[in-house]
Amino acid sequence: MNIEMINAAAARLAPVVRRTPMLSSPFLDEMAGRRVLVKAESLQHTGSFKFRGGWSALSGMSEAQRANGVIAYSSGNHAQGVALAAAKFGVPAVIVMPEDSPKLKVANTQALGAEVVTYDRLRDSREEIGAQLAAERGLTLVKPYDEPLVIAGQGTIGLEILEQATAEGIETADVLIPCGGGGLTSGISVTFEGTDLRARTCEPEEFDDVARSLASGEREVNATQGGSICDAIVTNSPGEITFPIMLKNCGPGLVVNDEEAMRAVAIAYQRLKIVLEPGGAVALAAALFHADKVEGDAVIVVATGGNVDTDVFTQCLELL
Amino acid sequence: MNIEMINAAAARLAPVVRRTPMLSSPFLDEMAGRRVLVKAESLQHTGSFKFRGGWSALSGMSEAQRANGVIAYSSGNHAQGVALAAAKFGVPAVIVMPEDSPKLKVANTQALGAEVVTYDRLRDSREEIGAQLAAERGLTLVKPYDEPLVIAGQGTIGLEILEQATAEGIETADVLIPCGGGGLTSGISVTFEGTDLRARTCEPEEFDDVARSLASGEREVNATQGGSICDAIVTNSPGEITFPIMLKNCGPGLVVNDEEAMRAVAIAYQRLKIVLEPGGAVALAAALFHADKVEGDAVIVVATGGNVDTDVFTQCLELL
Repeated sequence: MNIEMINAAAARLAPVVRRTPMLSSPFLDEMAGRRVLVKAESLQHTGSFKFRGGWSALSGMSEAQRANGVIAYSSGNHAQGVALAAAKFGVPAVIVMPEDSPKLKVANTQALGAEVVTYDRLRDSREEIGAQLAAERGLTLVKPYDEPLVIAGQGTIGLEILEQATAEGIETADVLIPCGGGGLTSGISVTFEGTDLRARTCEPEEFDDVARSLASGEREVNATQGGSICDAIVTNSPGEITFPIMLKNCGPGLVVNDEEAMRAVAIAYQRLKIVLEPGGAVALAAALFHADKVEGDAVIVVATGGNVDTDVFTQCLELL
Repeated sequence: MNIEMINAAAARLAPVVRRTPMLSSPFLDEMAGRRVLVKAESLQHTGSFKFRGGWSALSGMSEAQRANGVIAYSSGNHAQGVALAAAKFGVPAVIVMPEDSPKLKVANTQALGAEVVTYDRLRDSREEIGAQLAAERGLTLVKPYDEPLVIAGQGTIGLEILEQATAEGIETADVLIPCGGGGLTSGISVTFEGTDLRARTCEPEEFDDVARSLASGEREVNATQGGSICDAIVTNSPGEITFPIMLKNCGPGLVVNDEEAMRAVAIAYQRLKIVLEPGGAVALAAALFHADKVEGDAVIVVATGGNVDTDVFTQCLELL
């Protein structure tokens, strides 16, 4: 991964991607004890940054490969990002989702024009189903993070952060990023090479595989496999491609608990007027509630997504 | 009011105002039966477009006048817009608010550095209290809409809409705008002169003084005086300065009911991931639920503010 690949992705994304705003509030600054700038990528098409990687992957393929269609595994944001990218290119998309996925997410993915194939989490292997479908129909698999085109797409957020931080007069800052497999963090971290911005991962407790991996220098694995309110960023371990990049570029990982993530959702609602999902709010939570572990006069936070179920969102608002 | 005044305001606002994004969702397009673009001014500093007018007024005064401080009457968005503008200039702001204002709005206004003077709605005259304070301290009154500098500030949104609509390939469209006294609508409408964008006011039922005034050609008055869930845009009649501008430039006014406004709040949360107050969502409600009264292949909606009480917001979400 290098800056040329990210610049190339940015050029392909320019006509379709939304340049998301950098938000702020004096109330957040006071809570964090420093300036807080929030890159509101929850306002991206499909409600999360994942559209960038999806579009980057589809626009980076050969026309012949793309015309055959694409396939992805995901119950959430990556599914919608790939589905919308395929719809805009007018090519087929198949999304392999667990049959117990929230009905709304299935319906949304279908409404974006994708074919949803469901599987039984306990009985079936999504990899086998996907491989069979891909072979039968000549579909190309779009991985959620361990794919250079996807990493380059997510990295375009780093280019925007650099410009927006400069416009705000900020040259030096920690940049806190919600981290699952590391596609977003690794891509952004490449854009910061040679600058005084430093990428740092943020994860929920019990799913802090990246923080532990950055500390040990090896890809660590989580003991717990799922069931977090921060579902969007729960992965088992950092990616094969993403981890070496993060190890080279990132500061120490930050970890927040579920209640802190939920409080950050509520504060983003109240002070920034944006809707976040708990997994998309862990970086804001780290900035607000773990300020002692952050360096500098300003902190930049990436708010990655807003695809939250309403019962979870209202639970968060009750913490205000 | 003319385009030169709005261009001058835009130049003064450029260093501090947030250029708010134009959002969209295929789900909204399907509901409305045409493309829907939403100018999310709820993401402006202080959570509403009112900061533009506040900053325009303060930056347009002489330095000597500004140094003495400003005064405004408002229980809501205008208060916060003027308070933040004064704070950024480092000059005193006095905000005259009813003593039964929501505690959070009083606290927020004070937190932005303003002095809050409360009055009894039944016993006191806010005009008298304000005039006395203004005289004693040499404060300048910043009116919420019948003030050319304020109209010019709000009108800068029209300049951004023109650029953003062109970038989206839209040359002809109705532009729906939540309307109270008409400062925002009249300012925006001036920027559309000579173009194929048409400004149209949106109001809640029972408070449709502007729609009736546009129909009759005279400044009509509402029978009901308050108590709307769309509190941010409830005024008694259109402004003296704003009405002739709207009469010249605007199409017929649109009217929505409270439930439609609340449903629009819920849909903006679900599909755009933004937080709106009911009054800030009436234009979206008109686009979605009164599509037959709108013309063209695309409609542009201004979402004016997001300063909503959480109990009202969760009530809206229950309509999903």
